[in-house]
Amino acid sequence: MRSLPSEPTRIERALLLWLEHEPPAADRNALLSAHPDLCDLLEPMLAGPGRIGDADRMQPTPDPDWSIRVRDSFARQPFMALLSASIARLEPGVCELVAPFRKELGQQHGFFHAGVVGTLADDACGYAAYSLMAATSSILTVEYKLNLLAPAQGPRLRALATVVRSGRTLTVCRADVFVGEPGNERICAAAQATLIQLADTSDQPR
Amino acid sequence: MRSLPSEPTRIERALLLWLEHEPPAADRNALLSAHPDLCDLLEPMLAGPGRIGDADRMQPTPDPDWSIRVRDSFARQPFMALLSASIARLEPGVCELVAPFRKELGQQHGFFHAGVVGTLADDACGYAAYSLMAATSSILTVEYKLNLLAPAQGPRLRALATVVRSGRTLTVCRADVFVGEPGNERICAAAQATLIQLADTSDQPR
Amino acid sequence: MRSLPSEPTRIERALLLWLEHEPPAADRNALLSAHPDLCDLLEPMLAGPGRIGDADRMQPTPDPDWSIRVRDSFARQPFMALLSASIARLEPGVCELVAPFRKELGQQHGFFHAGVVGTLADDACGYAAYSLMAATSSILTVEYKLNLLAPAQGPRLRALATVVRSGRTLTVCRADVFVGEPGNERICAAAQATLIQLADTSDQPR
Amino acid sequence: MRSLPSEPTRIERALLLWLEHEPPAADRNALLSAHPDLCDLLEPMLAGPGRIGDADRMQPTPDPDWSIRVRDSFARQPFMALLSASIARLEPGVCELVAPFRKELGQQHGFFHAGVVGTLADDACGYAAYSLMAATSSILTVEYKLNLLAPAQGPRLRALATVVRSGRTLTVCRADVFVGEPGNERICAAAQATLIQLADTSDQPR
Repeated sequence: MRSLPSEPTRIERALLLWLEHEPPAADRNALLSAHPDLCDLLEPMLAGPGRIGDADRMQPTPDPDWSIRVRDSFARQPFMALLSASIARLEPGVCELVAPFRKELGQQHGFFHAGVVGTLADDACGYAAYSLMAATSSILTVEYKLNLLAPAQGPRLRALATVVRSGRTLTVCRADVFVGEPGNERICAAAQATLIQLADTSDQPR
Repeated sequence: MRSLPSEPTRIERALLLWLEHEPPAADRNALLSAHPDLCDLLEPMLAGPGRIGDADRMQPTPDPDWSIRVRDSFARQPFMALLSASIARLEPGVCELVAPFRKELGQQHGFFHAGVVGTLADDACGYAAYSLMAATSSILTVEYKLNLLAPAQGPRLRALATVVRSGRTLTVCRADVFVGEPGNERICAAAQATLIQLADTSDQPR
Repeated sequence: MRSLPSEPTRIERALLLWLEHEPPAADRNALLSAHPDLCDLLEPMLAGPGRIGDADRMQPTPDPDWSIRVRDSFARQPFMALLSASIARLEPGVCELVAPFRKELGQQHGFFHAGVVGTLADDACGYAAYSLMAATSSILTVEYKLNLLAPAQGPRLRALATVVRSGRTLTVCRADVFVGEPGNERICAAAQATLIQLADTSDQPR
Repeated sequence: MRSLPSEPTRIERALLLWLEHEPPAADRNALLSAHPDLCDLLEPMLAGPGRIGDADRMQPTPDPDWSIRVRDSFARQPFMALLSASIARLEPGVCELVAPFRKELGQQHGFFHAGVVGTLADDACGYAAYSLMAATSSILTVEYKLNLLAPAQGPRLRALATVVRSGRTLTVCRADVFVGEPGNERICAAAQATLIQLADTSDQPR
């Protein structure tokens, strides 16, 4: 067994943070049993007080066709087409959208307009949330909040949203927005959003 | 002198709220002396405790050419052109933007996309704030938060932003967003935003 | 009829903003007919495009005992007692709370802690919203957002909250927070909050 | 080399999310070289487009005595003492605060008041940010936003804040708030906050 250094490294701290923030107990246990050396390394830190127990935040989606439903709704948003945005990744509780830069999406300095950044973040949050909702539901944004962290200057915007908590009525998501070339990006915005499930409501125009 | 009804009417309450929320002492006094009957009416309510004294929130802009500077910056935002947005009103600390509906700005139900609503609110806040900034400054959004209050369904979106507090570095604004035909609108969103003044920075692309 | 000055004064602008932001059409008409000189003054500005029609945002509360219900709920919040907070004003859709400074409520510079400012703003929003809810409902905060505008330094904090929109499930409020002595205050924070009505739920501890 | 299952497991997805969200390139590489089996597992997913390159969000604090400075500032906040709050963890860019439940911190249902939840989240964000600031600086909250995710019912509140981006003037943090007994908690709130560094300003009362 590897001995723990007196001061945890940044890797260990980061991994620990992840263990506390993200995975349900089952995943955590699976991770630790699959990686015994990781376990040895983290054990002393995991034993202490203040550790998360079993916050299973993400419920499985009740709709087997969730992916079709989400992609279909996205395809019916003309504003996403106007931004040339597309879905880069879609998983239960996770949605990633990307949009290439073009001059029309800029503000006065030639960066992506804050409104484009907010739109991509909001929409990614919406579909991350919608992926976990009922087959017969529709979704609307209740509110969103966006911090711009750096000028959104670069060839592509990428918004990665994850569900923080999915409730019967309300779902809360966070999104990080990155700018740059694939493989060479930096974070440019951080968002938090509240979405509402409209039960038994068509997601189509009335 | 008109006697005050035992229970203030909604008009009086609303006017009182306005007196407390908005105008600096000078304006309040001018209003009251120009309208003695209003004064009689409000006096008893104004005398009580808990009344605002002289919150002069809005400083005059230090730049005589503020209006040209703001309109010029707006004109250099290609994303505003993509939305066909235009400035409907511009005063020191106040900016109103409008954008007509077209199919490309919609979400899956055919309403204005929440991202368009947020963009208009953010941009109106930005230029309300920028109107009070220095001639040689530029401006960036630090963060904004938007509550969607009703489906943004209608022929035109209008965002009316006012400065809540203008500081040397940071300015905080609020915006209300309305949807409908001119003269027949309803509120559809409420925003609050923080803007930062970049001193001695060009507002043009680098 | 008084002629309109070529450039509207700040009073007129402020009043106009108020007319557009706040009152339902009925109140606006009542105000204008009660004050014909005001009407003359504002008429030319009211005639133009972009004026709000009849945004009747505030519905009358369906509960005749709303005031007792709100005060009773407030009295059951031990944290308000710990802050020595009290209700200074309560109207349908409006709630004002005050709290005196004492050392225990301070942060490291001796100002009111941002958490106290946020608490008062959140609670005022909650009771402004709750005043319009059903007799058999309870209320919870969904989210709130607070901008600190100036150091909250002074003998008393006052949070004035008004309902922006009251819906069946969700209500959105804004609050301004002032600090100072009664009659000599300045704004120190601005908040926006979302509240949820829990239908047919006791507001008492379970 | 272990072959990657056709569909990534939730562990792998979570770890991948972590790799993209959190660590700078150096940490990621160190993690992967220390855990070759992890590497084998993740490689195929890491190779694709849309992966983050080297977002080194966290700079080392320029102040060797940062920990003393932070703890000293915290100790000078009487409101934290009123809440019986204490620092449970402190690292560069990370701050965790805990507060035990007592009746005085409750709202009408006997849960932690939303204001207490917000206070703990705001303060944890503040000290996570302050840990990375200059020795001669002070700090103020610009704004914070809090989503309440579940009733804050339990014996202890724990707010875990991490810096998302630390800039020269502004720092943005996120906090998760948990409630329950140590080892058996659930998430009850999620916050995002903006803090400002006041350069060459005493953190003591004036």
